[in-house]
Amino acid sequence: MTRDDLYKQILAKKSMLCVGLDTSFEMMPPHIQAMARDGGIAFQGKFFQGRTRSVISFNKAIIDATAPFCVAFKPNLAFYESLGFEGMKALEVSVDYIRNTYPDHFIIADAKRGDIGNTAKMYAKTYFETMDFDAVTISPYMGSETVLPFLEYKGKFAIVVALSSNSSSSDFQFSVQNAKPLYQVVIEKMMSISTPENMMFVIGATKADKLSEIRSFCPDNFFLVPGVGAQGGSAEEVIKFGSNDKGGLLINSSRAVLYASKGEDFAKAAALVASETACI
Amino acid sequence: MTRDDLYKQILAKKSMLCVGLDTSFEMMPPHIQAMARDGGIAFQGKFFQGRTRSVISFNKAIIDATAPFCVAFKPNLAFYESLGFEGMKALEVSVDYIRNTYPDHFIIADAKRGDIGNTAKMYAKTYFETMDFDAVTISPYMGSETVLPFLEYKGKFAIVVALSSNSSSSDFQFSVQNAKPLYQVVIEKMMSISTPENMMFVIGATKADKLSEIRSFCPDNFFLVPGVGAQGGSAEEVIKFGSNDKGGLLINSSRAVLYASKGEDFAKAAALVASETACI
Repeated sequence: MTRDDLYKQILAKKSMLCVGLDTSFEMMPPHIQAMARDGGIAFQGKFFQGRTRSVISFNKAIIDATAPFCVAFKPNLAFYESLGFEGMKALEVSVDYIRNTYPDHFIIADAKRGDIGNTAKMYAKTYFETMDFDAVTISPYMGSETVLPFLEYKGKFAIVVALSSNSSSSDFQFSVQNAKPLYQVVIEKMMSISTPENMMFVIGATKADKLSEIRSFCPDNFFLVPGVGAQGGSAEEVIKFGSNDKGGLLINSSRAVLYASKGEDFAKAAALVASETACI
Repeated sequence: MTRDDLYKQILAKKSMLCVGLDTSFEMMPPHIQAMARDGGIAFQGKFFQGRTRSVISFNKAIIDATAPFCVAFKPNLAFYESLGFEGMKALEVSVDYIRNTYPDHFIIADAKRGDIGNTAKMYAKTYFETMDFDAVTISPYMGSETVLPFLEYKGKFAIVVALSSNSSSSDFQFSVQNAKPLYQVVIEKMMSISTPENMMFVIGATKADKLSEIRSFCPDNFFLVPGVGAQGGSAEEVIKFGSNDKGGLLINSSRAVLYASKGEDFAKAAALVASETACI
């Protein structure tokens, strides 16, 4: 997907929302958890049972309910990995389902990977070949080498963590190089090896005051903005300070959407929250 | 496993070697790759076929051949993930095999994970509960929060990347905070929230001259040292500058051991390289 395609979706949906699929087995509604104890289901020509069945059922309901109100989905890998290979199977099925059913949606692997070139190449293969994600989040500590293999795939994006939304983001991200804070050094280094057509940055919503500062030296790239909802950031402020002439923002909400209700109406409740978040 | 247990193994084996299981389907000997096209095998009471069978067969042969000459194994997650859930199944089986057959060996998930607390908790669950690793490598960009959930498991270790072995490690790791380079800031921050019984650091072998400097402010923690072998670092120099009174080092070699031969003798060739690497 190109940056223009993504902007068209933002205009069509009047939304910058990315729904974070941080699907936790323990936090699903009880009737969905219970499915893991029932028999299996057939889904897209394959047969699934156990926790895989629950995760797939939950994700399908959330995806169907929120797709009209969002432009992107972002599975968080940790939640799938925690269920072992059963979880990875559920992840693969969920990504296939989005790709086949909602082909205009942008799909992000929230993986925060970051390793030497030889290993980064395998991660790029994982998310862009084995699975069909549009983008992967990357932790930049080990330098530009961690990102290069991801940039070789046309129409795909690396999303590098620059300034994160969590409380300990200030531990290291404000270190200094040539009188600039590390998050700026990271952004400028990554900009020098990429284009806005294959690079985005993670900028936390809890740092909304920083967004306009960062826009001054990074006008064109999309920012993926977590921290709205459960983490306390304001989508309105993010849009005010962070948008550009191509939209320029994907505003993520995970827990506030997924777990809007623990009842049978969870999907409807998720749709309602999604319809009210990150509208433009 | 405690630091003392690990030191006892180092003394018993006269080795600081960690064998990196960066198992690449494409780099395995042709006769092992071919197994993916044969029928399945039963292994530890379960049935495996396809690429899972090849990876399990390769890992078992490497593990059996090198176990007498090493104290640790370190599967690199990227290589398993690139095969999708089949690869994750092979990973789980490999970890179980090491744990059950060689219970004195230390098992490291080379994952370079690093995310906000809520997500870090799920990664800790993945590697310490869903799978039975002793340690996980962590990328520190997002701060101390990325590490805390891993420290709650007794007898388990977080291994934080401080100074990596790759060429682009200098992009960001020498940024400055309070007149100290970032790798030192990372180490000191992590030391302040942990003990040498639950924290190790990744220090690249290609930075051997830095090892004695780092020992001056971090005398007690184990260092996991990648970069020996294919990446050009010297194990002798690493031991000279980096060891302490508990051993203090796990020296990793991956490609040089795994792919010592592409013939039927690959395991024997791996054992020979392992027996000559990181001896004390």
